[in-house]
Amino acid sequence: MIFFYAPKACSFASHLALEHVGAEFEAHRLDFSKNQQRDDEYLSMNPKGRVPALMTDQGLLTENIAILAYIAQSFPEANLAPVNDPFQFARVQAFNSYLSSTVHVAHAHNYRGYRWVDADDPHSIEAMKAKVPDSMRECFELMENTMIEGPWVMGDNYTICDMYLFTICQWLEGDGVDINLFPKVANIFQLMNEDEVVKRVKAKELA
Amino acid sequence: MIFFYAPKACSFASHLALEHVGAEFEAHRLDFSKNQQRDDEYLSMNPKGRVPALMTDQGLLTENIAILAYIAQSFPEANLAPVNDPFQFARVQAFNSYLSSTVHVAHAHNYRGYRWVDADDPHSIEAMKAKVPDSMRECFELMENTMIEGPWVMGDNYTICDMYLFTICQWLEGDGVDINLFPKVANIFQLMNEDEVVKRVKAKELA
Repeated sequence: MIFFYAPKACSFASHLALEHVGAEFEAHRLDFSKNQQRDDEYLSMNPKGRVPALMTDQGLLTENIAILAYIAQSFPEANLAPVNDPFQFARVQAFNSYLSSTVHVAHAHNYRGYRWVDADDPHSIEAMKAKVPDSMRECFELMENTMIEGPWVMGDNYTICDMYLFTICQWLEGDGVDINLFPKVANIFQLMNEDEVVKRVKAKELA
Repeated sequence: MIFFYAPKACSFASHLALEHVGAEFEAHRLDFSKNQQRDDEYLSMNPKGRVPALMTDQGLLTENIAILAYIAQSFPEANLAPVNDPFQFARVQAFNSYLSSTVHVAHAHNYRGYRWVDADDPHSIEAMKAKVPDSMRECFELMENTMIEGPWVMGDNYTICDMYLFTICQWLEGDGVDINLFPKVANIFQLMNEDEVVKRVKAKELA
């Protein structure tokens, strides 16, 4: 398999899952500062022009939610999701869906406001940035108070939800939000920062 | 099961799936014009204050992606997703993830801009609305040209992807986009508008 990622992007979640299960894959870095995700060669393979993307022998997969679930189902011995229980598996997917469609989207208004307003409208671009600390704080309050069971997101088992949550936690400081407002989140963040696989993926992505 | 929906909301996708598989459930309508999704009683059950939500005997599920996958896995005889093939199932989830985290989000800037800028900033709210036709058209071009196999999204089989796509297609006219620009999408929309289950759910939601 070939895995396409960019440092500090949401692809970290899928990268971590691949390393965690011991998958055999080649990691291919895209440099967003050089806009490599819009290169013709990459677009011809992944027309979305985004990361993560995972080329498998059956074809290409995109979207963290899908790649994380695929890894969990393909490596059941790693126990990264309750893949044999449709209800519990759906709870995992619901948490990750909230991260991708609400939390990641709230964050993206800090850096990619041009997706939703004219790029030549500095007032609106700045207005979006100004809202990010509040919207991110609201998302994390909701997760802390109503979704995260503790110690891990889904309770006693470390899952693909923790991997995705950790990825977005790395953006909180830049979004003007203090992670220590959320004790369960902060605990997951600390536990994972001490994890050897997490350390290895971070070092690899930033090398 | 009890299913919570609002007319014309994205909950239509999950509602359609439940009817399609013949699930036994009670449908509970929320009136967004009366802000019923923020009522204390509903929030105590679903703190997100959104739809869809599905109460099962195992607990509550939210998020279309998760509910649709749960229905497909729980009613495998309906063949609404390739639930026994992790790669093909991930492709289904990737398509639905694109709908929820990119397409639905693009649409939401037409009506719920207050999520991402100060509600008292009419310039930015209008700037977001102004961008919606372009951003929705781009999303549909990408789906038409690179994701939808035809005749259905995933090829020969009608899946939970078509249900979710159809739901968002119903918003295109209000977003200022002509569905006929996208022949494969328009074909799916037409086929489904003629489907008896689709007709029944539409009539029920608008009754």
